[in-house]
Amino acid sequence: MYPNSRVFPTNSPAARCSTRLKDPPATDQALPRRLVGVPPPITVFHSEVFPIKLRPTCKTDAKLIMASAASSSNTITAACFSSLHRSSGAASSPTDQLFSAAFPKFKGLKLDLSSSTDLFSCRRVGGKRRALNHLITGSVPVEVAPETDVALIEKSVNTIRFLAIDAVEKANSGHPGLPMGCAPMGHILYDEIMRYNPKNPYWFNRDRFVLSAGHGCMLHYALLHLAGYDSVKEEDLRQFRQWKSRTPGHPENFETPGIEVTTGPLGQGICNAVGLALAEKHLAARFNKPDATIVDHYTYCIVGDGCNMEGVSNEACSLAGHWGLGKLICFYDDNHISIDGDTDIAFTESVDARFEALGWHVIWVKDGNTDYNAIRQAIADAKAVTDKPTLIKVTTTIGYGSPNKANSYSVHGSALGKKEVEATRQNLGWPHEPFVVPEDVKSHWSRHAKQGAELEVKWDNDLATYERKYPEEAREFKQLISGELPSGWDNALPRYTPELSGDATRNLSQACLNAIAKVLPGILGGSADLASSNMTLLKMFGDFQRNTPTERNLRFGVREHGMGAICNGIALHGSGLIPYCATFFVFTDYMRAAMRISALSEAGVIYVMTHDSIGLGEDGPTHQPVEHLASFRAMPNILMLRPADGNETAGSYKVAVENRKRPSVLALSRQKLPQLPGTSIEGVARGGYIISDNSSGNNPDLILIGTGSELEIVFKAAEVIRKEGKTVRVVSLVSWELFEEQTPEYKESVLPSSVIARVSVEAGSTFGWEKYVGPKGKAVGLDRFGASAPAGVLYKEFGLTVDNVVVQAKQVI
Amino acid sequence: MYPNSRVFPTNSPAARCSTRLKDPPATDQALPRRLVGVPPPITVFHSEVFPIKLRPTCKTDAKLIMASAASSSNTITAACFSSLHRSSGAASSPTDQLFSAAFPKFKGLKLDLSSSTDLFSCRRVGGKRRALNHLITGSVPVEVAPETDVALIEKSVNTIRFLAIDAVEKANSGHPGLPMGCAPMGHILYDEIMRYNPKNPYWFNRDRFVLSAGHGCMLHYALLHLAGYDSVKEEDLRQFRQWKSRTPGHPENFETPGIEVTTGPLGQGICNAVGLALAEKHLAARFNKPDATIVDHYTYCIVGDGCNMEGVSNEACSLAGHWGLGKLICFYDDNHISIDGDTDIAFTESVDARFEALGWHVIWVKDGNTDYNAIRQAIADAKAVTDKPTLIKVTTTIGYGSPNKANSYSVHGSALGKKEVEATRQNLGWPHEPFVVPEDVKSHWSRHAKQGAELEVKWDNDLATYERKYPEEAREFKQLISGELPSGWDNALPRYTPELSGDATRNLSQACLNAIAKVLPGILGGSADLASSNMTLLKMFGDFQRNTPTERNLRFGVREHGMGAICNGIALHGSGLIPYCATFFVFTDYMRAAMRISALSEAGVIYVMTHDSIGLGEDGPTHQPVEHLASFRAMPNILMLRPADGNETAGSYKVAVENRKRPSVLALSRQKLPQLPGTSIEGVARGGYIISDNSSGNNPDLILIGTGSELEIVFKAAEVIRKEGKTVRVVSLVSWELFEEQTPEYKESVLPSSVIARVSVEAGSTFGWEKYVGPKGKAVGLDRFGASAPAGVLYKEFGLTVDNVVVQAKQVI
Repeated sequence: MYPNSRVFPTNSPAARCSTRLKDPPATDQALPRRLVGVPPPITVFHSEVFPIKLRPTCKTDAKLIMASAASSSNTITAACFSSLHRSSGAASSPTDQLFSAAFPKFKGLKLDLSSSTDLFSCRRVGGKRRALNHLITGSVPVEVAPETDVALIEKSVNTIRFLAIDAVEKANSGHPGLPMGCAPMGHILYDEIMRYNPKNPYWFNRDRFVLSAGHGCMLHYALLHLAGYDSVKEEDLRQFRQWKSRTPGHPENFETPGIEVTTGPLGQGICNAVGLALAEKHLAARFNKPDATIVDHYTYCIVGDGCNMEGVSNEACSLAGHWGLGKLICFYDDNHISIDGDTDIAFTESVDARFEALGWHVIWVKDGNTDYNAIRQAIADAKAVTDKPTLIKVTTTIGYGSPNKANSYSVHGSALGKKEVEATRQNLGWPHEPFVVPEDVKSHWSRHAKQGAELEVKWDNDLATYERKYPEEAREFKQLISGELPSGWDNALPRYTPELSGDATRNLSQACLNAIAKVLPGILGGSADLASSNMTLLKMFGDFQRNTPTERNLRFGVREHGMGAICNGIALHGSGLIPYCATFFVFTDYMRAAMRISALSEAGVIYVMTHDSIGLGEDGPTHQPVEHLASFRAMPNILMLRPADGNETAGSYKVAVENRKRPSVLALSRQKLPQLPGTSIEGVARGGYIISDNSSGNNPDLILIGTGSELEIVFKAAEVIRKEGKTVRVVSLVSWELFEEQTPEYKESVLPSSVIARVSVEAGSTFGWEKYVGPKGKAVGLDRFGASAPAGVLYKEFGLTVDNVVVQAKQVI
Repeated sequence: MYPNSRVFPTNSPAARCSTRLKDPPATDQALPRRLVGVPPPITVFHSEVFPIKLRPTCKTDAKLIMASAASSSNTITAACFSSLHRSSGAASSPTDQLFSAAFPKFKGLKLDLSSSTDLFSCRRVGGKRRALNHLITGSVPVEVAPETDVALIEKSVNTIRFLAIDAVEKANSGHPGLPMGCAPMGHILYDEIMRYNPKNPYWFNRDRFVLSAGHGCMLHYALLHLAGYDSVKEEDLRQFRQWKSRTPGHPENFETPGIEVTTGPLGQGICNAVGLALAEKHLAARFNKPDATIVDHYTYCIVGDGCNMEGVSNEACSLAGHWGLGKLICFYDDNHISIDGDTDIAFTESVDARFEALGWHVIWVKDGNTDYNAIRQAIADAKAVTDKPTLIKVTTTIGYGSPNKANSYSVHGSALGKKEVEATRQNLGWPHEPFVVPEDVKSHWSRHAKQGAELEVKWDNDLATYERKYPEEAREFKQLISGELPSGWDNALPRYTPELSGDATRNLSQACLNAIAKVLPGILGGSADLASSNMTLLKMFGDFQRNTPTERNLRFGVREHGMGAICNGIALHGSGLIPYCATFFVFTDYMRAAMRISALSEAGVIYVMTHDSIGLGEDGPTHQPVEHLASFRAMPNILMLRPADGNETAGSYKVAVENRKRPSVLALSRQKLPQLPGTSIEGVARGGYIISDNSSGNNPDLILIGTGSELEIVFKAAEVIRKEGKTVRVVSLVSWELFEEQTPEYKESVLPSSVIARVSVEAGSTFGWEKYVGPKGKAVGLDRFGASAPAGVLYKEFGLTVDNVVVQAKQVI
């Protein structure tokens, strides 16, 4: 990609700025001679051949410290190699041996010589050659910028830094620290590595980039600006964090073309990235042919310390390792600073070793501030490992370049302040006015519009060729990525009559899922280790696994939160995939943060939530949702659906599938329910509708309202009360949101304001029901936690019975 | 503890059934001779000296497989030692070297010879002698039951298995698999290791046990039954999972004395255990003296695969490693089975290596089904490591003993069925009727009542001695563990008058916290890496850290969920500690599962939630709570408080501190708010109250209701409307729950039903407000996501202004 780049052969000195050495270096005198002749291949996490360039980074002692760090690198390298060499006698052992060496700990700008740690570790590959074959490939060739262009690159990197500084300063709000520290990796990604078309941010085959540490969004906005995205013009940068701007305080895909997902709540982005990479792996396996590749992109991500502390990231990264998502490449911005100060106060685990344990390929770039080649080489090496995701730990300095605030929490989340901005300009030698992109930098980046257009044209041609060779697959592929649903797809949904046997809505849900999976090529999903309880297996497909990626049953393990966030990534891949995921309804509590982001970021995930009330019985109150229906009804842009039987379950799937920019939550019963007369797919679409009525003139004596498993109760109660000569209307309020979207006339036709005798019945909190039952009505529900007992006993004890509803109703008529 | 036990000296053959060998074995011929003379100390995760006893476990091929596994153990051990020996030349290297060897994978009852994995790993300790000093202690002496008693132990273990089988069978619901697999470790813990008094389950200095894999609760109930707890009699076992029984479907501390915390939602229990261990470490450091120990107990925990998949457990375990909680000992029930089948489908990470990365001491017991000595030794070795928590991975067979269902998901969560129960009885040679505890087993366990009473008496005496020597400390300690608040504590709360300068309620919260920390010895807590935003630092204390455990500022890192669950453990330690924890209000979404368990399990955690609305401004909708107030108002047994100023913040703390069996959530503003006239600490206690009124006769023209930061808006709007000649009442509805608990008369005096002209104003979802504004009233709020812009702009754009409230009010008067 780089215009004047050179490709070095593997064994050249330049290529040895590598993280892996296939053969012992033959010529470089800086490396210990003892290495020569070591027989087995060795993987080393970063070594340097290019000397670190000493730059006037800061006026303070930072310069001195950087110099110390740089000058000690050869010593460090030598010590490591030496240590490796001494153990080489064990090379023939059929053993996969891990070594870790104690080294001075490099912490941001501070080299802490008082303590030592095993941050630096090296893996020796002995046995298991087949499994670890990829590790013994040599250093891959890498494009390296010629020296003459390094100055321009640094200028570009500083442009990114100052766009971030200036925007935060103008807004007097924001996070300059991350963009200043991550500008080098950002530059290399967007200028040298990634394939995208700035004039079409939605080009299907683009590389995806996720800034999981979303607070650093000015990094991303600056990169989109330089790359030529129309969504981030200079005026947008000036409007950073302002009302209706395209540059909000955290990255929002629905505001800014070029932003793939919505991040900011920590840990979510990396999980989204796992979902994006999963989507790519699935579609590539499903559609690519030996002679025709139409799905082929990488997913890049930047995570910070915060993301790595969040449990959700561990969940998704464990799955990424399990699935072998080799085209997922994450940069860990290892800057040792979080809001409360040095990460030493709460985060002293070995992140490297944890990711290794999760099955990741881990690389360490020791100097992410200035060592561009190490970053380039790390990416090349990451790509060379195709069966594992890669974590590139990049040690950076937060707020790099700020003489007085770098490497401290004060640069994390506040504007630098006029004085420090000036000092940083001086320190980095930046003479430009705020928001200025120097002409040579602008000119340098200008090629991306042309190159991006060429990439897209080439892909269009590839797709055309593919279509000629594989018309059937091409038809499905194009259908899929169009985002349009196949016409008439909903004819596949089952319909029920009251004569048909009753069933739990979780089972009816399975019938729907299996029916629509036959006609919707984008359906895929699974459960958090409850597939046989949630009834979510697609029977015609196998498991999506490392070696069976064309399949569509996802096995998330007991990882609800990671599951939701991964599904957001799948939904926002923009390829027409429709992810569903499942657990017990009560465990939405584990994944609520991801579900809220589904709602906010317009990710049409289908949440299949079974065991939706005390009706689950003996498992008791830890497993019985009570307040959950209310909690989702209160959440914007999400559809809470609680179907009562087969028709309503089918109707709920129709709604869920058609709402591609709004997630749906289906609350489904564990217990068997009858097929009720009067329910319909069409009724569900209106949110609330009459299923039975013996009144005329829109003026019944009583309105009984139920949802889900309690619709049966109100249906039967109505029959009892009618026998006493009253007119009773039964309303199914399957989705409050959809009902509220109907016309006032329709709503009045279902719930006439003149009828104040109303009773609602729902096996959950009555919170919010006043809206529909009014001050004179009654809400029968459960405003306490449930209990462990058979479901029938619980319904009786808590008054969720026909008898009690009749009693309550008589009090309001 | 064991009546006829012998203690072997360190170098005896018996002691060498150890996980660590200080010196090379001199006599045992089963170990490779080459080991003799190896100079450095070696840590080996499990080896055997006692031959594994071949038992008729199952009728199927299990017997053969178990035999294979057993007979291959010497080979495995030899291979490992041999491998270690070959590398011994590196012993002088200043390097901490990790080795892992490829071994056949033992999977439940199946020994998979086709694949090899590095489950077996051994740590060689070379350099860093200071830091790893504990590792080079030799094998600690361990009590081992004499051979003559082994038969009785097996009988006891089978008693546990059958009590679980029988109870699940009778309930026709439950989880027999875990109790059957974990019975040996359960027996050893409750019969040989733990210190408790069954007749006083709340004895302060008891060892704590948490079954994090709570679905296996019949294990715990069976153990409590055998140990003599009055809470679990035979009748209680027969009532397993029935209405109002003391043996609910998952462990519930509020139902069953002897159960410490409420588990079932996976991953929570291990986090609670971290909190329990933290409480012990803190109190021990704070009160113990060189010559007087009054706080000294272990915290034991059993986690399953599910717990280890959940991200929340990774969060808390990272902190446990960081804090060096050496008295936390967790058993990982490594049975390779989860609900969806073999864990291979979703969980292939190396749990051992991950826990090592988190700073834990990891031990592997290869055969948790029959190798009691290995379990005993692992516990002894765990105790010997005092500066790291220990994970003992115990490979077990789920449903051990069931000939046709063991080692499969079918035994996880369903009754075995009559036929299989019979087959299991035959297989394990169990002639007894259901629920029978054989007399010799009963007699064997009967000593615990006496021993427990003695332990408590001894501790009482120790405390009396302590009191004589350290009266001041004893006074504080006794005050603390009494659970009573010091009388007059609330006089420390600040009070405000309208003349005082306004401030953000997050700052006012900090003033309260710092004020009450001076008078409440139990206050401790912290933030999820937002201390400087949440304003939660206790200024008179330092950080609770590994080496400063007497301090009270907890640094949770960016781990909201783990934070909440750890605080549940602290609260339920029963020692009068009052934990508080903090993050942005929107991120309650991350920790909601833990907060629900606070509510359910009566853990009086104080949740300090700042940045409680769009008032946080530029960070945008990912950070702006909208539906969160409603979502907690709908949750049972939790107090949602949204104070408006200094007095209400102080009042909220008064409520929160006094509610020791109900958690409180304080929603606090980022932005500055005035000290309003009419607010009071006393008013908050009633949930809703009048702060201003120009009407008489309880019949104003209009009632304006506000909470938190919007109380100022309704206060000002009232002034405007009053100028137009209307009578207006202003009500602060700071806590809906508390208001609902008032008498009908009081509620009517605040919100008279005759006044239907009502307007509520709250910067959040209007969901639920119909209850207070009625069908003719108006709820001004925000039923969409927020946006990124300065707070003032957002309030204006979303109509949360005095002007708009006046307009809305005029429409309802």
